[in-house]
Amino acid sequence: MQKNKLKQLWAAGKPAMNGWCSIGNPLTAEIMAAQGYDSVTIDIQHGALDYGDALPMFQAMRSSGATLMARVPWLDPGYIMKMLDAGAMGIICPMINNRTEAEEFVSYMRYPPLGQRSFGPTRAAVAMPGYGVAANGEVLALAMIETAEGMENLDEIAATPGLDGIYVGPADLTLGTQKGRLPPGFDRQEPEMIALIKQITEACKANGIAACLHCGSTDYAAQAIGWGYNLTTVGGDTRLLAGAAGASVAVWRELNGRDGDTDGDEGMY
Amino acid sequence: MQKNKLKQLWAAGKPAMNGWCSIGNPLTAEIMAAQGYDSVTIDIQHGALDYGDALPMFQAMRSSGATLMARVPWLDPGYIMKMLDAGAMGIICPMINNRTEAEEFVSYMRYPPLGQRSFGPTRAAVAMPGYGVAANGEVLALAMIETAEGMENLDEIAATPGLDGIYVGPADLTLGTQKGRLPPGFDRQEPEMIALIKQITEACKANGIAACLHCGSTDYAAQAIGWGYNLTTVGGDTRLLAGAAGASVAVWRELNGRDGDTDGDEGMY
Amino acid sequence: MQKNKLKQLWAAGKPAMNGWCSIGNPLTAEIMAAQGYDSVTIDIQHGALDYGDALPMFQAMRSSGATLMARVPWLDPGYIMKMLDAGAMGIICPMINNRTEAEEFVSYMRYPPLGQRSFGPTRAAVAMPGYGVAANGEVLALAMIETAEGMENLDEIAATPGLDGIYVGPADLTLGTQKGRLPPGFDRQEPEMIALIKQITEACKANGIAACLHCGSTDYAAQAIGWGYNLTTVGGDTRLLAGAAGASVAVWRELNGRDGDTDGDEGMY
Amino acid sequence: MQKNKLKQLWAAGKPAMNGWCSIGNPLTAEIMAAQGYDSVTIDIQHGALDYGDALPMFQAMRSSGATLMARVPWLDPGYIMKMLDAGAMGIICPMINNRTEAEEFVSYMRYPPLGQRSFGPTRAAVAMPGYGVAANGEVLALAMIETAEGMENLDEIAATPGLDGIYVGPADLTLGTQKGRLPPGFDRQEPEMIALIKQITEACKANGIAACLHCGSTDYAAQAIGWGYNLTTVGGDTRLLAGAAGASVAVWRELNGRDGDTDGDEGMY
Amino acid sequence: MQKNKLKQLWAAGKPAMNGWCSIGNPLTAEIMAAQGYDSVTIDIQHGALDYGDALPMFQAMRSSGATLMARVPWLDPGYIMKMLDAGAMGIICPMINNRTEAEEFVSYMRYPPLGQRSFGPTRAAVAMPGYGVAANGEVLALAMIETAEGMENLDEIAATPGLDGIYVGPADLTLGTQKGRLPPGFDRQEPEMIALIKQITEACKANGIAACLHCGSTDYAAQAIGWGYNLTTVGGDTRLLAGAAGASVAVWRELNGRDGDTDGDEGMY
Amino acid sequence: MQKNKLKQLWAAGKPAMNGWCSIGNPLTAEIMAAQGYDSVTIDIQHGALDYGDALPMFQAMRSSGATLMARVPWLDPGYIMKMLDAGAMGIICPMINNRTEAEEFVSYMRYPPLGQRSFGPTRAAVAMPGYGVAANGEVLALAMIETAEGMENLDEIAATPGLDGIYVGPADLTLGTQKGRLPPGFDRQEPEMIALIKQITEACKANGIAACLHCGSTDYAAQAIGWGYNLTTVGGDTRLLAGAAGASVAVWRELNGRDGDTDGDEGMY
Repeated sequence: MQKNKLKQLWAAGKPAMNGWCSIGNPLTAEIMAAQGYDSVTIDIQHGALDYGDALPMFQAMRSSGATLMARVPWLDPGYIMKMLDAGAMGIICPMINNRTEAEEFVSYMRYPPLGQRSFGPTRAAVAMPGYGVAANGEVLALAMIETAEGMENLDEIAATPGLDGIYVGPADLTLGTQKGRLPPGFDRQEPEMIALIKQITEACKANGIAACLHCGSTDYAAQAIGWGYNLTTVGGDTRLLAGAAGASVAVWRELNGRDGDTDGDEGMY
Repeated sequence: MQKNKLKQLWAAGKPAMNGWCSIGNPLTAEIMAAQGYDSVTIDIQHGALDYGDALPMFQAMRSSGATLMARVPWLDPGYIMKMLDAGAMGIICPMINNRTEAEEFVSYMRYPPLGQRSFGPTRAAVAMPGYGVAANGEVLALAMIETAEGMENLDEIAATPGLDGIYVGPADLTLGTQKGRLPPGFDRQEPEMIALIKQITEACKANGIAACLHCGSTDYAAQAIGWGYNLTTVGGDTRLLAGAAGASVAVWRELNGRDGDTDGDEGMY
Repeated sequence: MQKNKLKQLWAAGKPAMNGWCSIGNPLTAEIMAAQGYDSVTIDIQHGALDYGDALPMFQAMRSSGATLMARVPWLDPGYIMKMLDAGAMGIICPMINNRTEAEEFVSYMRYPPLGQRSFGPTRAAVAMPGYGVAANGEVLALAMIETAEGMENLDEIAATPGLDGIYVGPADLTLGTQKGRLPPGFDRQEPEMIALIKQITEACKANGIAACLHCGSTDYAAQAIGWGYNLTTVGGDTRLLAGAAGASVAVWRELNGRDGDTDGDEGMY
Repeated sequence: MQKNKLKQLWAAGKPAMNGWCSIGNPLTAEIMAAQGYDSVTIDIQHGALDYGDALPMFQAMRSSGATLMARVPWLDPGYIMKMLDAGAMGIICPMINNRTEAEEFVSYMRYPPLGQRSFGPTRAAVAMPGYGVAANGEVLALAMIETAEGMENLDEIAATPGLDGIYVGPADLTLGTQKGRLPPGFDRQEPEMIALIKQITEACKANGIAACLHCGSTDYAAQAIGWGYNLTTVGGDTRLLAGAAGASVAVWRELNGRDGDTDGDEGMY
Repeated sequence: MQKNKLKQLWAAGKPAMNGWCSIGNPLTAEIMAAQGYDSVTIDIQHGALDYGDALPMFQAMRSSGATLMARVPWLDPGYIMKMLDAGAMGIICPMINNRTEAEEFVSYMRYPPLGQRSFGPTRAAVAMPGYGVAANGEVLALAMIETAEGMENLDEIAATPGLDGIYVGPADLTLGTQKGRLPPGFDRQEPEMIALIKQITEACKANGIAACLHCGSTDYAAQAIGWGYNLTTVGGDTRLLAGAAGASVAVWRELNGRDGDTDGDEGMY
Repeated sequence: MQKNKLKQLWAAGKPAMNGWCSIGNPLTAEIMAAQGYDSVTIDIQHGALDYGDALPMFQAMRSSGATLMARVPWLDPGYIMKMLDAGAMGIICPMINNRTEAEEFVSYMRYPPLGQRSFGPTRAAVAMPGYGVAANGEVLALAMIETAEGMENLDEIAATPGLDGIYVGPADLTLGTQKGRLPPGFDRQEPEMIALIKQITEACKANGIAACLHCGSTDYAAQAIGWGYNLTTVGGDTRLLAGAAGASVAVWRELNGRDGDTDGDEGMY
């Protein structure tokens, strides 16, 4: 069975760059996967797509060599196992609040006796010859810590046997820990938020697992890698498209004297 | 961020009419939304559709001005949050049996610190500029009471902070409370059922929340509004289509001497 | 191979009622086919759907017993043959203007040596055991006459060997023959339009083929059957749905004192 | 309402053959259902499909006369009820570990007062005239036993009122009970696995419910029927297609001297 | 019926900016339409999409206020009319080589007696109340000139009654006129190509129709507007997405010392 | 740009085996492409699929290494060019009757000055870095000869500059040349049909182009290769699936004493 590229990079001490797909379309996926990302994650939680969209996206990205992952909507065994059967080499699970949830999550990712994953890798076995119980050693279980309760239980979660890493969503981490004091958003500059973000990477290091951060800019991503993060995402397909198109319109309007005419939307997340 | 039209109507003391979509198609949705309903609900629970169908339906109905809602299949945080991210301005959640479930439901609808909704309104932010934590004040949480247990806990459920209303499905309410004595169906005429239906609107009034009823006819809807209901649904796309087509065939057959030849189906719910 | 129900009805001297699908959805198709229509036509020309939508609609209507037909976008051999392979038992072809076009159309419908249909009834053979060259005798070729040129060549078209009938679209027939004097629409009342509509049924009778009319009401359909028409369509799924939903909203608003508030769309065709 | 063919076969003491769909496509479903299977199950758990694919597959198979069932991803009330509303005449539920889970599963399958199924059989009522509370007596609840815990609780599970049968997945049963000693796969030959497989059919007999086995070959299926199994599945669409295509390529290569050139995949499950 | 925004801008002497969709997805369409383009064109000719994708994209963009257009695959009356019925307010038709083709194209765009468009604006009438023969005055017919033959017949084409403008694709114009001397691409700098591009705008001016140019950059677009062009497109969704994502990966790799590791694709058109 | 594997095999004097997809599904395509075929053709003419299905199928097969081709519905420039832009490395065009049609077909396949293909390989350029005018040398133009007229013009067609081969469909060739004397079907045994089939390969050899034959069995394919055929197809996905499933049911019924109960369909093409 093929090897997980992220595990290889991390074993070599290299940081990884993850692409992010929120558009439910195999062409946008194929384009994203062609840009040189080490891994590409389909976001089924907040992305405008579901299982039925993700399957042909995995197929369209198969030949890219990127490690393909999915963020699932919730800690749901049926959904997690369906994504693994569809060929996901890693699952990002949102809202892990404590050790029990972390253990449940990890158990859904591996076949017995390690876990309780059900056997039937229909499409994974087509796409990855040799797939079978060997998958236990290749698929990545990445838990999101983004609530006050999750932060309180950070060390216990990070120590869960079989967990491969923690993925941080700064918008939720801010909402979840700051009691409404701070607005949601990426690339936090507040010292208290940076402290939390650094605390997570320390917990990961202490347990030999990967620290992963969702970022809004390459500059922040580089800073996070300096803090010890092993993987960063920088924006995603919707933001990249809206940003590039919006900028093109703005420049065109300025160049052609149509500045004040009308305006596009703002406020994409 | 845009305002919720239902909240505005209710604040003005006006009843609202809700449309109902069980067909998974953006054209039927666009047609429904063009008829002047105050709100349109996509029924993912019993409708023949799922998330992948509902997303383009929301998009097709965006320009109608109707408040767009979804009934989810179950009290499932992942599904509820996905529908909100897709742009739902209200969620109808089936089978709320007690205060704990009502609190869980409400918590999935709002960002911290009010609740535990995860942040990432990908499509909602495209469709509704300014969407963000402001959504907390606009999205409607409507719980269904339709079981014996739910009726027992009616007052506690209705008093749940953050709950915006109760939605009544008469078919389930009948099955759930009458121990098989009465068949399912809308527009109940039995005194004991009318008593339950009135009891719910009293509990809503006592707690300052909206009472909503699924009806089979405009006459019954008008009667319910007389009882204090704030929103009524009258049938839905499948019943409207089957009813109109079936009537057209019946009249044609009678006019053209083909009465006894064959027959269409009956018994649509 | 199964028999064509329309041919049987016509042989027995009975008029037929045709249902009309403009919505690209297998559930609406299944609902329509359940209402007792003798045949159901998927309108790929003006309907909001294409081949990819029509295929599962044919599948969903298979068990209804109705004769399934398609109106194709244009006199296009590739499209006509694809619809036959998908299981259409009849094709309505728009805008046949002269004998040459009629002969081309008919040739696409039948296997050699009768015509030039290419062999490969992939899905038709799954759905209709025994399908093969026997299809030549069961599929219906219905040409639309709706232009001034078509009316001039009416007799020559109606006499085309292998043509099974003429289907009349009154909106186009009006636009095509009246030089902008009259607006488009069904159920023409103008004497000059009624004359044309009757002229077509005469030409059909003279050639032993079926006369078919698209109507907007059962009353007009009954009148047309009195003129000798063998098949009538009365409205279609979009009009039936919009009509029923719009009427429901209007009654509700009147009953509940919300008459003047806002309004739905009008002007569906 | 139509009768469940499997119940009739079992009442007559006849074994049944079940077809298995893992491909999300209505044409493959229509082809499968045309081959003479007594029932056909859409596998939403491990198949490469979800609700949105299963609905048109049910529609495409409606006219076949086979009993249509679905395996759901997990013990999830929303999903189970959606499949029933879509027209499933039986549900196979994976990973039932104890009596509590079995009772929950059974409760989702039946309307009150027998269970807690919510009423709204939108598409089922279109496809099966007379559908309503009568469905309680026709839909089959089949629990999978495939874990060590499930085997320990076999007798209690089998005795659950309302349960109609047990479905055995040998790959999971092996992984779940043998602590990694044996690889997953169908058609177990090991005495200890055969003992478990026979133990299940004994428990079923003792409780008057059906024993069902997923097999990889017709020979093993015949053997299982000899052991008392009432229904067997033999492979499924992906294995049948890959097996036939792979064999065709292998023979062609041998016949035409291209044996060693390259090779296709292996290891389909 | 609503007015065509492009016609209004041109009447006011203002240049227009057109967005370009090659991805078959309603979310990317909704995002594009939110950026402030005056019009958005769905490219069915070279885009990775067809009618079935374009319909929900039109629906998703309805509320944006942008004028929605489509480029069709070829001079095909069935396809052109289907796009108009779907709600296109303009059609760009590729490869118009002479006056006859231009006249055919224009005739497909307008109802009789002006042209030969067939009547049945199913979805257009839902989306645009008042749609009917009034559409004749609002829909734009834009012919592409991109071959040697087309350039030879430029003046005759531009003078076709009912033609609203000429749309120039520089890649095809280069291949079509330069006999393989120059590679395809946008933003031509060669004097002979600039001469052709200017010649087209002169022909448009002489006939009072709009000149439209497909560009690769806002700078070139501004230059073209200086030459008299009335509308420019700048890239499109696939190029915008690939460009932004590719740049993000490149910067990230440089910042984090992973420059030489691997590389994404290049050469998007 | 990547090389065409079929051209390489033919240059090396080796015969090729082609797979055939009539099911519109990316998983069946991925499974087919994994079996070791040298090329896989998506049949848009008679297959139950269209452009919208073929695109994700091409994506799903990209990593297989097989040469991907499409059979288009008809000699339609818009469709042919769309399939090339989608990434087809070869086009099979049905019903080529004479030299004019062959020249038209070939012209649609190549960019000027060789032909008249329009430039814009949106998805092809994503999937095949370096795609551009180089595609002229890699895409295969395969014309079908299957009518009496086509056979009369065989030598002229085969000599068309730019034509890469002739593909023979025996069912149509039989219907087209035998005036109804013989039923359609593959693997013709009649001397007169074998003579035609051999005549075609002679014409191909004389012009240095490939001869390709659609077969029903590996034995016939081997025989055809002996006659000089360069590529053979053996059945396709629908026949392989139906054959394997039908055989499994038949054996099961025989083994388990249910022979005469009921029967599946027959007569798949």
